[in-house]
Amino acid sequence: MSPSTYNRKDEASVNTLRLLAVDMVEKAKSGHPGLPLGAAPLVYALFTRFLKHDPEAPDWPDRDRFVMSPGHGSALLYALLHLSGYDVSMDDLKNFRQARSRTPGHPEFGVTPGVEATTGPLGQGFAMCVGLAMAERIMAHLFNRPGHDIFDHNVYALVSDGDLMEGVAGEAASLAGTLGLNKLICVYDDNHMTIEGSTDLSFTEDVRARFLSYGWQVIVVADGEDLQSLNLAFENAIAEQDKPSLIMARTVLGAGSPKAGKPEAHGEPLGPEALKAARQHYGYGDKEPFFVDERVRNNFLERAKTHTERRKRWEELLDSYGKEWPELRAELDRRLAGLLPDDLEIRLKEALTFPGDKPVATRTAGGQVINALSTMLPELVGGSADLGPSNKTLISAGGSFLPLNPGGRNIHFGVREAAMGAVLNGLALSGGVIPFGGTFLVFSDYLRPAIRLSALMKLRVIHVFTHDSVGVGEDGPTHQPVEHIAALRVIPNLCVMRPADAHETGALWMVALKRKLPSALILSRQNLPVLDPSEYPGVIDGPAKGAYVLKEADGSPEALVLASGSEVSLALKALELVERKENVRVVSVPSFELFEEQTPEYRESVLPAVVTKRLAIEAGVSFGWEKHVGERGVVISNEDFGFSAPAEVIFDELGFSPAKVAEAVNKLLG
Amino acid sequence: MSPSTYNRKDEASVNTLRLLAVDMVEKAKSGHPGLPLGAAPLVYALFTRFLKHDPEAPDWPDRDRFVMSPGHGSALLYALLHLSGYDVSMDDLKNFRQARSRTPGHPEFGVTPGVEATTGPLGQGFAMCVGLAMAERIMAHLFNRPGHDIFDHNVYALVSDGDLMEGVAGEAASLAGTLGLNKLICVYDDNHMTIEGSTDLSFTEDVRARFLSYGWQVIVVADGEDLQSLNLAFENAIAEQDKPSLIMARTVLGAGSPKAGKPEAHGEPLGPEALKAARQHYGYGDKEPFFVDERVRNNFLERAKTHTERRKRWEELLDSYGKEWPELRAELDRRLAGLLPDDLEIRLKEALTFPGDKPVATRTAGGQVINALSTMLPELVGGSADLGPSNKTLISAGGSFLPLNPGGRNIHFGVREAAMGAVLNGLALSGGVIPFGGTFLVFSDYLRPAIRLSALMKLRVIHVFTHDSVGVGEDGPTHQPVEHIAALRVIPNLCVMRPADAHETGALWMVALKRKLPSALILSRQNLPVLDPSEYPGVIDGPAKGAYVLKEADGSPEALVLASGSEVSLALKALELVERKENVRVVSVPSFELFEEQTPEYRESVLPAVVTKRLAIEAGVSFGWEKHVGERGVVISNEDFGFSAPAEVIFDELGFSPAKVAEAVNKLLG
Repeated sequence: MSPSTYNRKDEASVNTLRLLAVDMVEKAKSGHPGLPLGAAPLVYALFTRFLKHDPEAPDWPDRDRFVMSPGHGSALLYALLHLSGYDVSMDDLKNFRQARSRTPGHPEFGVTPGVEATTGPLGQGFAMCVGLAMAERIMAHLFNRPGHDIFDHNVYALVSDGDLMEGVAGEAASLAGTLGLNKLICVYDDNHMTIEGSTDLSFTEDVRARFLSYGWQVIVVADGEDLQSLNLAFENAIAEQDKPSLIMARTVLGAGSPKAGKPEAHGEPLGPEALKAARQHYGYGDKEPFFVDERVRNNFLERAKTHTERRKRWEELLDSYGKEWPELRAELDRRLAGLLPDDLEIRLKEALTFPGDKPVATRTAGGQVINALSTMLPELVGGSADLGPSNKTLISAGGSFLPLNPGGRNIHFGVREAAMGAVLNGLALSGGVIPFGGTFLVFSDYLRPAIRLSALMKLRVIHVFTHDSVGVGEDGPTHQPVEHIAALRVIPNLCVMRPADAHETGALWMVALKRKLPSALILSRQNLPVLDPSEYPGVIDGPAKGAYVLKEADGSPEALVLASGSEVSLALKALELVERKENVRVVSVPSFELFEEQTPEYRESVLPAVVTKRLAIEAGVSFGWEKHVGERGVVISNEDFGFSAPAEVIFDELGFSPAKVAEAVNKLLG
Repeated sequence: MSPSTYNRKDEASVNTLRLLAVDMVEKAKSGHPGLPLGAAPLVYALFTRFLKHDPEAPDWPDRDRFVMSPGHGSALLYALLHLSGYDVSMDDLKNFRQARSRTPGHPEFGVTPGVEATTGPLGQGFAMCVGLAMAERIMAHLFNRPGHDIFDHNVYALVSDGDLMEGVAGEAASLAGTLGLNKLICVYDDNHMTIEGSTDLSFTEDVRARFLSYGWQVIVVADGEDLQSLNLAFENAIAEQDKPSLIMARTVLGAGSPKAGKPEAHGEPLGPEALKAARQHYGYGDKEPFFVDERVRNNFLERAKTHTERRKRWEELLDSYGKEWPELRAELDRRLAGLLPDDLEIRLKEALTFPGDKPVATRTAGGQVINALSTMLPELVGGSADLGPSNKTLISAGGSFLPLNPGGRNIHFGVREAAMGAVLNGLALSGGVIPFGGTFLVFSDYLRPAIRLSALMKLRVIHVFTHDSVGVGEDGPTHQPVEHIAALRVIPNLCVMRPADAHETGALWMVALKRKLPSALILSRQNLPVLDPSEYPGVIDGPAKGAYVLKEADGSPEALVLASGSEVSLALKALELVERKENVRVVSVPSFELFEEQTPEYRESVLPAVVTKRLAIEAGVSFGWEKHVGERGVVISNEDFGFSAPAEVIFDELGFSPAKVAEAVNKLLG
């Protein structure tokens, strides 16, 4: 359909979107009318002319993705989904922002059909789209065959001033430019207005020049109400073969209402009078709230039909693909279903061998796991925020993921931890890939906003955080995590795992792969003894339970020594110096979360309530360990920042030496 | 001195800097030789020709600031400080990266004279410099008088590829452009190399165009070894009156060593052979490690003399200033000493009145505090990350801090939480101001890297985090903090305070002002009853102790109910419904950290060990509360993400209703 076909039906449809959105906000007595009023033409043009989707099949793998990065514009999105034919009813619209509704305050992935990502924290949606576009390229490269472009879709985002001010968006935009992600098309709702007032106060940069500097195509639409210009812009963006595109569309916050162009239009209901004025402005002055003209409804439904036809043609293509390449088809189905290869766990165990006589850093063991998995699990994609050689996350023979090498297995995120987190979320959202990303544990702080979203969305994203304690040594306190393990443990739905040795590392990587939730693997920089499974049989199957008896006492234990990660072998060494060591049980605790998931009986068997003499060791803050050691318990921890020195010196000075731990255990035993 | 005076003495000095740095790394068996070898000419040109400083008086208030944002280049900085005459000895250089040395792995503020900021986490140093430059402008505007430019200094940073990839730097650069911070001059060590390899892998953007888009002046120096070009660049940067400047100097990582231009040059000692080759390359092949030519030493010392003279002239200027404007001088001295006005606490108490019959959100009370302080405490400067109207951080009659209004009291950080955190650190580092910044608590995640640095540096930075729980309501889980209070409590040196009402808010703001460490004030969106001091006398002086008896039991308490923030009034309401309420003591716990600082006797008096029936209420994760409620204790908490609905609906559904809390207390009492 050519732009010249725009007519009054289109205009009426755009205005209906606007008014539905502001009616929703008004009824909820809460929400954001300003963005919908200004940006409705932008998403209308996209959804009705360009977006490849089928409201009847919101999970169609080759659909275009659309993400509303300024999630506060949710009312507009829901109105659009409703009219487009998604399973979002008029009642749902009227239930906007109410408990357990399909129309929560900000778009939530998994709650509403057609919502591709949870958004709200600005910048994150934009950055997730970079991951979505990378996933498209990866899947297309692997699965497309001549005449069978199984994957060929675009990723669209609506973005706002706030999104583009956020650093995570800058990072992601630069990465997208380097990668030449031409299927990424962002529409910028350029309304010159922020909550505190005009962008003159805080955001005077030349956004067009900035995106050109990143290597993007930038298309300016001087009037965001002009559907024909918007159409041309989308056509040019779609035609671009080498670069991502930014369409800058000049809009007015709260357009058509008396609050137009004022910050007050942003985040609260218009109120009856302004709403009435807006309704009149848009030609529906005599209509009730939530009114939808039949003509408007039909306008959307006609398009829905063509969408469904298109999707069905894709399914036919997939059928013929399956006949010609049955193995590829089976692999595709497995990956899209998020299933691991049946024999993966066994093969991984076979592939990993850790001689007991050679100490191995868990980061190194982690690297061995990734490299072993790289051939067994082709959907594993990832990289590091420019610390690959240190994180040991590089796939040796994998090559670099670059525009000319879409099959490269190593993603170079650059020194961009925040964007890496969001991109990993986008990769996971797209389906068919299992993403991982590495950086130092101390920099996990930069990823928290993205980790939180992955936890909210329940995405299988695997974070590899190495250099896990003051064991970092000479780099000093800026690089020594102290509070980070505890700070990650508090995030709901995130599984934090700190393996004690190479065997635990392999076992816990497998746990991360099996979970359909985000995981954080916390790995050591320094070498650690490999626990001999013949002496410590628990080390193979115990880690997955979160805590397990590593070394049993003779008879009923008088005291428990709990430890995680590098402190487990310290506990074993210390025990050799303890007078009544045979009375002590040593428990390895790689994961609080996994342990919580066990039965009360199992937990009691590992940590019997009757044994109140308990000591925990972890080179980090003790916060949270009280739960496991109880009131009379002792924690050998690290309550202050570290310092720059060789690791052994630091550990010794902070009390993490066999002698000092043994002294504490002796004292505990009395 | 004009550029044409560069000669072999300069060359020898630059080479000495390089070799001292690599010798330090070699001796420490750890560190980063690549940056010093490449960037030595950049900092040499700056330190010897332009930097206004006096090694004898590293705290001179009007000195130029220099921050090495890529903190891993610390060896170069220490060598430079040593030769420049700071109190950094040759022995200190030889003790590089050893325990408690003056030369830790990354530069640490407070440890080494001449180190202006703790750096290492990339991007943070750059962004702190934006704060340093803002502070210069603020202080100059307030204190300079005709003929008496007490403040007139530049802020210089060395920045690296990694710094410029980080989102926090992008945010800060955009803000600096908007503010036209012409005294900010950044020298970019443009070596095209990252840890994972060439910048072609991850960073192909046009940095020059990007900084131009932010409104910066950009000066390109094609050869970073060319001291004359560097000089001209600095001259042009200093001459610029309206914009910050970026000097892009093309360098080679590891220059002059066999590893030149290779990533291996970055982060490990060169090794004996490569070091030998580098020593030969730089004309010191026959010299021992740590060799310094007399000529080189004198070259630096000559300059030191002129520096001291310059500083003494400034002190004379300050003397005459004091005579002409004695009150200003006294005010300046007070502010530079970081002292509060003597009567501040009393005046603030008088200014704040909270009638008991009108509920007030603690964010609103916080806004009253800020506005009251705005006249009493002119050094209080701050703003919000574009949430001023919501955070209530706006100073009503303060105006906006903008290029044409340097006296504006409200800083508009834009939607840039990460940069806000770093800028607050820069403001605090500069001296003479007490910075605060506001955003939603859920977005505190974005500030953590900066908060961590403020905690490491022990800076008085006040964070105002509003919308503190699921009480956010309709905006839903993306905006509802759940894990954030706990996640902040784990950061060493940070004081987390969650006031229960308006009175506690005033008291805790005062605590934050008095501390010389960072604070986080956690404030409610929703209205809360004002606790009547005549009924609850503890509410005035109790909060500063972290926890206090709000409502006493009749006789010895049988049970303790602990709560923080909005849950304190919930506890009081619930108690009304408890059968044996007279047996229950209610304890308000606004701050774990402040409570920890009290004497054991005080803590025992509030939470007697003998009372094991304990219940805590906090609308967040329970993680960490075990310490206060003990093994048999109960925590009414919020272990999962919230949902979008009116706040009352959410609180009720999650168990935060008087009836449900009362039920739990009844159960506890048995």
